[in-house]
Amino acid sequence: MDIVYMDNNATTKVDPVVLDAMMPYFTEFYGNASSMHSFGGAVGREIAAARDKVAALINAEPGEIIFTSCGTESDSTAIYAAIRSNPNKKHIITSRVEHPAVKNLYEYLAKTGYRVTWVPVDKDGVLDMDFFRRHLSDDTALVSIMWANNESGVIFPIAEIADALKDKGIVFHSDAVQAVGKVPVDVKAVGLDMLSLSGHKLHGPKGVGALYVRKGAKFSPFMIGGHQERGRRGGTENVASIVGLGRASELVKGHLEEMNTRVRALRDRLEEGLLKNTPNALLNGAKDLRLPNTTNISFEYVEGEAILLMMDQFGICASSGSACTSGSLEPSHVLRAMGVPFTAAHGSIRFSLSTYNTEKEVDFVVEKLPPIIERLRHMSPFWKGAGCQLQ
Amino acid sequence: MDIVYMDNNATTKVDPVVLDAMMPYFTEFYGNASSMHSFGGAVGREIAAARDKVAALINAEPGEIIFTSCGTESDSTAIYAAIRSNPNKKHIITSRVEHPAVKNLYEYLAKTGYRVTWVPVDKDGVLDMDFFRRHLSDDTALVSIMWANNESGVIFPIAEIADALKDKGIVFHSDAVQAVGKVPVDVKAVGLDMLSLSGHKLHGPKGVGALYVRKGAKFSPFMIGGHQERGRRGGTENVASIVGLGRASELVKGHLEEMNTRVRALRDRLEEGLLKNTPNALLNGAKDLRLPNTTNISFEYVEGEAILLMMDQFGICASSGSACTSGSLEPSHVLRAMGVPFTAAHGSIRFSLSTYNTEKEVDFVVEKLPPIIERLRHMSPFWKGAGCQLQ
Repeated sequence: MDIVYMDNNATTKVDPVVLDAMMPYFTEFYGNASSMHSFGGAVGREIAAARDKVAALINAEPGEIIFTSCGTESDSTAIYAAIRSNPNKKHIITSRVEHPAVKNLYEYLAKTGYRVTWVPVDKDGVLDMDFFRRHLSDDTALVSIMWANNESGVIFPIAEIADALKDKGIVFHSDAVQAVGKVPVDVKAVGLDMLSLSGHKLHGPKGVGALYVRKGAKFSPFMIGGHQERGRRGGTENVASIVGLGRASELVKGHLEEMNTRVRALRDRLEEGLLKNTPNALLNGAKDLRLPNTTNISFEYVEGEAILLMMDQFGICASSGSACTSGSLEPSHVLRAMGVPFTAAHGSIRFSLSTYNTEKEVDFVVEKLPPIIERLRHMSPFWKGAGCQLQ
Repeated sequence: MDIVYMDNNATTKVDPVVLDAMMPYFTEFYGNASSMHSFGGAVGREIAAARDKVAALINAEPGEIIFTSCGTESDSTAIYAAIRSNPNKKHIITSRVEHPAVKNLYEYLAKTGYRVTWVPVDKDGVLDMDFFRRHLSDDTALVSIMWANNESGVIFPIAEIADALKDKGIVFHSDAVQAVGKVPVDVKAVGLDMLSLSGHKLHGPKGVGALYVRKGAKFSPFMIGGHQERGRRGGTENVASIVGLGRASELVKGHLEEMNTRVRALRDRLEEGLLKNTPNALLNGAKDLRLPNTTNISFEYVEGEAILLMMDQFGICASSGSACTSGSLEPSHVLRAMGVPFTAAHGSIRFSLSTYNTEKEVDFVVEKLPPIIERLRHMSPFWKGAGCQLQ
């Protein structure tokens, strides 16, 4: 069965060109970049070339890029660097809709003596900038707010946040794992201190990420060990994956226009088709300020997990907005923060497209999904026809 | 030019069989193991199979294995888990010859209020067990001592250390990155709490490691984020590399006997040949209690870096015992801890073999290296013939 893969915010296919670039570094040029012999030194040069490419994607200097093992590590590195550099400040700010890599670390820090401000979003998933501004204080060490949300696709006003923080001595980090490769990300234009990105979200391999650290920003390492990454991240360089991230960065830079034209049009076609053909279906997230590849739709009175399982029979891959995979029956914290009603949040599905998707695939989903929803509703004790309410 | 690769303690060639096992997970089965759809779920099963294989290599239960991004992350995870689980104890113990992943983290912790005991070694690199026992106290939270040293190859008395810690409520972690795959490592027989291993030291890929955490041992995550690894390590699973580590674990388990017979004999042939054919050459490290693949030899009155560069012209890859790659001119902290004199420590070379090495390669090195040393000594201001002393 052919797979219709629309779960690219979860992970992406490694581009075959990226894999080709990686291949020599497993069994042929397998040296350690830190070695004195030329066999190892040669791979050091490839790492430098990859650093240039990642830097170019976000308009950074190569020396501002630290390779990590994933987006989560980049986030942890940034957050710990910020608070260790400002040990006397005990207030940290984030949004209520962050990825678990930031959210769960903030919750941990809250238990160790940090005061956390969680900036809310409105029903469209848009950040409450007034609330944010009101809660800045002299005690604020760090603001960590994502560039774009992984579930709703809503893009946050990163430049505006950076402006609000200017000259206040507050570190500004953004988890841009979902934004990089989908919308233009220019660290110099925005003026933030740190930014996280991840390889496997942009057709690079899993197990590699990067952290941008503005030149001059205070830093202390999270992964303490050897002298790799100029003492900023211990651990033997993951040569093949770093080379892969470099090649993927080049590729997605070249595909940015296609992502924002053809893929955006595909996403719109999918969204409109599903909303039109399914009663009681609601879009989650602002219509305009969104990643071009993402749509999150609630199908009222059905369970997201059941929808996924039935789509799976047609080879359609997407995600449920609910946090099912953690074993919890709670709906997604993102949708709850947006005030999506219980009956709608439980039946939300996120489709996230890539440049690999086609119009034929979109039309296939628009054809197959509405009957699935209808069938599930007929089995649901909560469904008594369009417009009914939960008891 | 053919490469004679004798730097396997730095990193190893990915076994082609391992790479074959990894290949499907880049462009074909690229799903996220946490996804609800069967495309993602299928890779979850491959991760489980890899976990079984890694566990089998060290006689652990699969549930006791946490996948990480490298040995350094495994070490950090273990050390932070130990001290966070025992927040009231402020004394931690390690050896004076640890890898930077442990050494530098202990130095960092010393600055944050921990009292550190550094257990010395003797001139053969053998741990001072009396010193170790004397310094245990009620305030001791953690002992982290490596299974085998990366530079000298000397194996530490892990079972004896575990016995000394029994029922004392002290966490025992061992960095076994250099031991696993070279000597039998049985976590149940020894009875330790945590153990680090790394993929790229045993013909698996770079960028993946594992941490053994004994069932029942207190734990808290270092990489805080999503629910992956049962909440013990956030970050999207690095599927291809985890599968690779699993396959590599199977392979090295099968090669353990060859490592301890044929490779050991090759190492002995190399060591004896070099010591016999070169005046003023000294073995660093106990002759017997050593990894079967490692020999560390000091060539007095010459610089290790110069030896490496001249060997490089013949395609011979090895390492200098000095910490040159960190930009420091200081000799290795391991050799200093062993009391190796300055004139010898600077000219030390570590050869670390693998099952890929041949007798022909060994004989090539034994033929080429002694004339290199002779040539360098004739250029050295410190060399006035055998037995001369530094001014």
